[in-house]
Amino acid sequence: MTPFLGKHFLLGTDAARTLYAASQADDTPIFDWHCHLPAREILENRAPKNIAQLWLSGDHYKWRAMRACGVPERCVSGEAPAKEKFAAWAACLQRLPGNPLFHWAHLELQRYFCRFDVLDAASAEETWRDCNRQIAGGGFAPRELIARSNVVALCTTDDPADSLDVHQALQKEPLQCRVLPAFRPDKTLAIAGEDFLPWLKKLAQTTGCVINSYEDLCGALQTRIAAFDALGCRAADHGLPFVPFAPASQDAVARVFGARLRGDLPTALQAAQYQTALLQFLGAAYAKRGWVMELHMGPLRNNNARALRALGPDTGFDSIGDWPVAQPLARFLDSLDARRQLPRTLLFNLNPRDNYVLGAMLGNFQTDEVPGKLQLGPAWWFLDSIDGMRAQLQALGNLGALGTFVGMETDSRSFLSYPRHEYFRRVFCGLLGDWAEQGLLPWRQETLVSLCEDVFYRNAAGYFGLTAKKTAKARSKT
Amino acid sequence: MTPFLGKHFLLGTDAARTLYAASQADDTPIFDWHCHLPAREILENRAPKNIAQLWLSGDHYKWRAMRACGVPERCVSGEAPAKEKFAAWAACLQRLPGNPLFHWAHLELQRYFCRFDVLDAASAEETWRDCNRQIAGGGFAPRELIARSNVVALCTTDDPADSLDVHQALQKEPLQCRVLPAFRPDKTLAIAGEDFLPWLKKLAQTTGCVINSYEDLCGALQTRIAAFDALGCRAADHGLPFVPFAPASQDAVARVFGARLRGDLPTALQAAQYQTALLQFLGAAYAKRGWVMELHMGPLRNNNARALRALGPDTGFDSIGDWPVAQPLARFLDSLDARRQLPRTLLFNLNPRDNYVLGAMLGNFQTDEVPGKLQLGPAWWFLDSIDGMRAQLQALGNLGALGTFVGMETDSRSFLSYPRHEYFRRVFCGLLGDWAEQGLLPWRQETLVSLCEDVFYRNAAGYFGLTAKKTAKARSKT
Amino acid sequence: MTPFLGKHFLLGTDAARTLYAASQADDTPIFDWHCHLPAREILENRAPKNIAQLWLSGDHYKWRAMRACGVPERCVSGEAPAKEKFAAWAACLQRLPGNPLFHWAHLELQRYFCRFDVLDAASAEETWRDCNRQIAGGGFAPRELIARSNVVALCTTDDPADSLDVHQALQKEPLQCRVLPAFRPDKTLAIAGEDFLPWLKKLAQTTGCVINSYEDLCGALQTRIAAFDALGCRAADHGLPFVPFAPASQDAVARVFGARLRGDLPTALQAAQYQTALLQFLGAAYAKRGWVMELHMGPLRNNNARALRALGPDTGFDSIGDWPVAQPLARFLDSLDARRQLPRTLLFNLNPRDNYVLGAMLGNFQTDEVPGKLQLGPAWWFLDSIDGMRAQLQALGNLGALGTFVGMETDSRSFLSYPRHEYFRRVFCGLLGDWAEQGLLPWRQETLVSLCEDVFYRNAAGYFGLTAKKTAKARSKT
Repeated sequence: MTPFLGKHFLLGTDAARTLYAASQADDTPIFDWHCHLPAREILENRAPKNIAQLWLSGDHYKWRAMRACGVPERCVSGEAPAKEKFAAWAACLQRLPGNPLFHWAHLELQRYFCRFDVLDAASAEETWRDCNRQIAGGGFAPRELIARSNVVALCTTDDPADSLDVHQALQKEPLQCRVLPAFRPDKTLAIAGEDFLPWLKKLAQTTGCVINSYEDLCGALQTRIAAFDALGCRAADHGLPFVPFAPASQDAVARVFGARLRGDLPTALQAAQYQTALLQFLGAAYAKRGWVMELHMGPLRNNNARALRALGPDTGFDSIGDWPVAQPLARFLDSLDARRQLPRTLLFNLNPRDNYVLGAMLGNFQTDEVPGKLQLGPAWWFLDSIDGMRAQLQALGNLGALGTFVGMETDSRSFLSYPRHEYFRRVFCGLLGDWAEQGLLPWRQETLVSLCEDVFYRNAAGYFGLTAKKTAKARSKT
Repeated sequence: MTPFLGKHFLLGTDAARTLYAASQADDTPIFDWHCHLPAREILENRAPKNIAQLWLSGDHYKWRAMRACGVPERCVSGEAPAKEKFAAWAACLQRLPGNPLFHWAHLELQRYFCRFDVLDAASAEETWRDCNRQIAGGGFAPRELIARSNVVALCTTDDPADSLDVHQALQKEPLQCRVLPAFRPDKTLAIAGEDFLPWLKKLAQTTGCVINSYEDLCGALQTRIAAFDALGCRAADHGLPFVPFAPASQDAVARVFGARLRGDLPTALQAAQYQTALLQFLGAAYAKRGWVMELHMGPLRNNNARALRALGPDTGFDSIGDWPVAQPLARFLDSLDARRQLPRTLLFNLNPRDNYVLGAMLGNFQTDEVPGKLQLGPAWWFLDSIDGMRAQLQALGNLGALGTFVGMETDSRSFLSYPRHEYFRRVFCGLLGDWAEQGLLPWRQETLVSLCEDVFYRNAAGYFGLTAKKTAKARSKT
Repeated sequence: MTPFLGKHFLLGTDAARTLYAASQADDTPIFDWHCHLPAREILENRAPKNIAQLWLSGDHYKWRAMRACGVPERCVSGEAPAKEKFAAWAACLQRLPGNPLFHWAHLELQRYFCRFDVLDAASAEETWRDCNRQIAGGGFAPRELIARSNVVALCTTDDPADSLDVHQALQKEPLQCRVLPAFRPDKTLAIAGEDFLPWLKKLAQTTGCVINSYEDLCGALQTRIAAFDALGCRAADHGLPFVPFAPASQDAVARVFGARLRGDLPTALQAAQYQTALLQFLGAAYAKRGWVMELHMGPLRNNNARALRALGPDTGFDSIGDWPVAQPLARFLDSLDARRQLPRTLLFNLNPRDNYVLGAMLGNFQTDEVPGKLQLGPAWWFLDSIDGMRAQLQALGNLGALGTFVGMETDSRSFLSYPRHEYFRRVFCGLLGDWAEQGLLPWRQETLVSLCEDVFYRNAAGYFGLTAKKTAKARSKT
């Protein structure tokens, strides 16, 4: 029996072990090109109080799992003492076999706390004490965790109306890791939402622009794109149920926007027309800057109205939608390509049934601008698991050029999530190793090691145009 | 080579074998919380005439397989002699590798007839003779098969308009097994069907109510719910292509129902409004009683009009639909949750592509009412296979808390189907064993055995609130 | 480590190796019942100039992979010298682990050129020289490749308006292989396309009919069906996003067609009504002739407008659609079955998420006309891979009668694609071998070998009613 989470975790073959070792997967720096770490927390760099704060404040993955185990909300997001929450979480773990949280929790205990036993109700007390002792001893503030994790660059997630003051301040700090903003204009697209007009007001304040028309809006966004670009932004990100495609004249779009300014909500078609036009405008702007466009498709959000009122969004009440995605996405991408305004684009699906639809979509728009100009985003959120990763890699392998893949990002809100890169690297070597062992892939070590290095770091660095403070060659952990 | 269907069937690892043995999977009682066994047959308890009657009268799974092999209808559902039908079925088996029917048939031969050879055209004659000899010797009447299978409780499937006389009679019988009714109001929802008005008349007769309005209907249903509850009913079941969500005022719904009483068929929207309102009414009623609501989604029924006319429904002409399910389901569940009227709910998908949609849906509505208040139903009907079960378990493992799972039911019309519980238990131990052997799960035997016991019996007993005549501790086969 | 593409490629178990050897999989003739080989090239039988022409002229699979690797269009479909294109392709291969192209390319090098090393940038020059030397030495003209591949019959893909002159000429040639036309009336169905009227004119010319009405069209098509039938045609093929079902009166359909003749484009509904009627008409005609109806569902075509203008269709810019397919397909098949006009039908899905929908659909219409009257088409196009094949076989195994399966076809435009049959046969034996080794299938060698032989050749020959010049018994390679 292979030891649980041992040295050869996920490396089931000799080939996999050789690849993992020879590609120096443990020491290759991390470029975390998409995450939700709050830049302010990096700036303020406050040490956490205890393991519960590190693990359980705001991690909606764990919250969901705890609710699924019947833990009362008081011990999930509520007012229970930190220690009680931690004990409740620990007691859940034995009911979570097969859940990536089980692996993540133990990987984090191993990598950051050198704790190798299994966390459960019985070991909770001892773990609580030891982890808190270690935290009190230092090394767990955001910048320390980033440095300990060998992260050379990371991209946060920022609203166009954000001032970016925090990012400006961060860039003056003596950080080994580059912290770059990324542009996430979801609120710009949410024309039918009740937050739309307040958000527009905020954008007007941030930019100093008057926004009385669709044209004004585009101008203000251009201003923000320039500001993000000046701070090193390399990517924009869109969270969408699906990519709409409802072309309309600029006049029609301007009328929809104008009506909204006056308080008239758009019809579903008008909203789609506005979104289509805006996405086209933004895509063209990204292409001009050489940014990457990330399209995160598939979430069905805010499904529990009571919880939304009580706890707000992003608290564990989202799930997976099942809209058709292929046709409008193809036509949207083509509309940009037709004008030579299609940026480098990453397509993410949250519903695993869409792996093949998106994986095959890539090939419709590949060019010699860069290898893998269109990418299938790594398995994400509900799919960020061994099964999810393998399915994504196999779909991409079957349909495209796996060797051009930009690889993993954490997509996380937690500074302890970096072992997900290790998880991914192990899954990747495990898959290549299986193929080699079965005679599906020739065993040419140098070639395969180089492929791993590409996928672990180099492809992403090249694709996003990263110029790191610390180069990719640097391998020793800080 | 592992022997076919041998002792270690589906238990590919030492870990799996240990778990299967230590959890006493072979001896743990069965709580078959959803099946289609006719209560009347249990009451009448008639011994079958021969193996063909036991196996081939009414088993539309086998019928489909026979038709797929080109067997004429005469030997499927027709007038051919029993022995000829049996021979036709036996001759098909060698064309069914990979089909769960192949395993089920041989498991049933092993477990009930102690026959361990392979059934095919050559062995058909001998099998026919031996099985019939054994049947003539006794032990194959419904109650005997239930007792031999160590079933401590089972839930049948009953229409609200059923009188439940049979169930009342059954409860006075000296049965070791609790036989409970379950509430299946599909005909109540089928407002556009031609059977709707006759069915209403039957409901009126059963309840003694006059049903002249939607309000009357709800009253009559409440009466039946109380009657079912009095006989120990713990669950209601809905068979639906997808869960509709079209909210409308009570007045509007009442008008749709009133018009239908006068013979006016509803539009598609009106039918959805009626169904939404009725499902909300029923869901609230189930929640009040502590019943479980089962939502069986996905079948595309009665696809062959000629066969429907000739043979009626449920004769093997249904298949798998591909409607979108996520958004209306989320809104329906939320509409109940918002009023704190969401019962314990089991979500079943027939299309395997929806495993992840439903698996992730659960997490939106989990509370501390009970661990796993929302459940992903076990792989069912076309998915009731090794592949189907593993995919369901992996989806649930990745997305939820596998340890809270209520496990298997047969969903069967046959008294010989209980080895499907063994099948499931082997698959379950096989999966945990694979994980442990690969180092994905810590090998802690006691914890894992307890998990198996939970999933094989305890979780379901707790979730459905079962109070069995024979307790779960009882392990010796009768 | 199993050698790459060695003797035991894809045969991971002793059982698989035994089955592969005992079924004489390497020597069993090929009946390639669906391909896109141009009959004219077989007639003209011109030897290729070099390996680039053989491999890279018109193979949109390879083109897509090259574009995904960032190769400029000049070296893909453009004016670059053949050798440069070949070098560009060779350099891509190391970025394509997991892609079936990687296997296909090396299988073709092994089987046709006796080259066993790995093709990459380093070996490109030597491979180029050696392959071209061999090509110059003969054995690579279309008929030679067909004969070397042991193909006893193949069905091309032909438009109803094609004259079939080439096929007539071919049938007088001294070919060991039967070359049969197959009927592909996609242009007949594309009523809204701009090519529709020119195509009708061509059909009128070919048939000598005047086509002034829907009735005339049906008459002309009947003429062509007879002509195809006279040349041994056994199958018709339809490429469709999904099968429409919009029944309308013959009058209504005639009006839609009449209006189109006058230049009025149909609405979406009218187009669906026309297509439904025409598919019903054609299906009935196929049934009368005993032809097989192939329904290839799922492609999302011509997604890149710029590329379509520059390069035309079928140049690598198609992908996978995600339309719902179940309900209209069921009703379409039932509409034919109701009139006893449903032909033998093969259902193909391009989106792997539909494996189970189509696999379960078969069972709704199986009869004793022939075992497996309805078939799940083999994994195809984007799914023509180890993963795709295994998923298709497992779906079919779980849901139907795998032993009746008609097996593989190449669906290819290249004379070097026949090793895909070997690929399939290895995958098939590999799967059966896995089942036997795990005890899921009884190891009865004769039975399983016979099953393999059925699936490799006999089922297809029977199903399509093939009368080969060279019989299926013939086993020695020519």
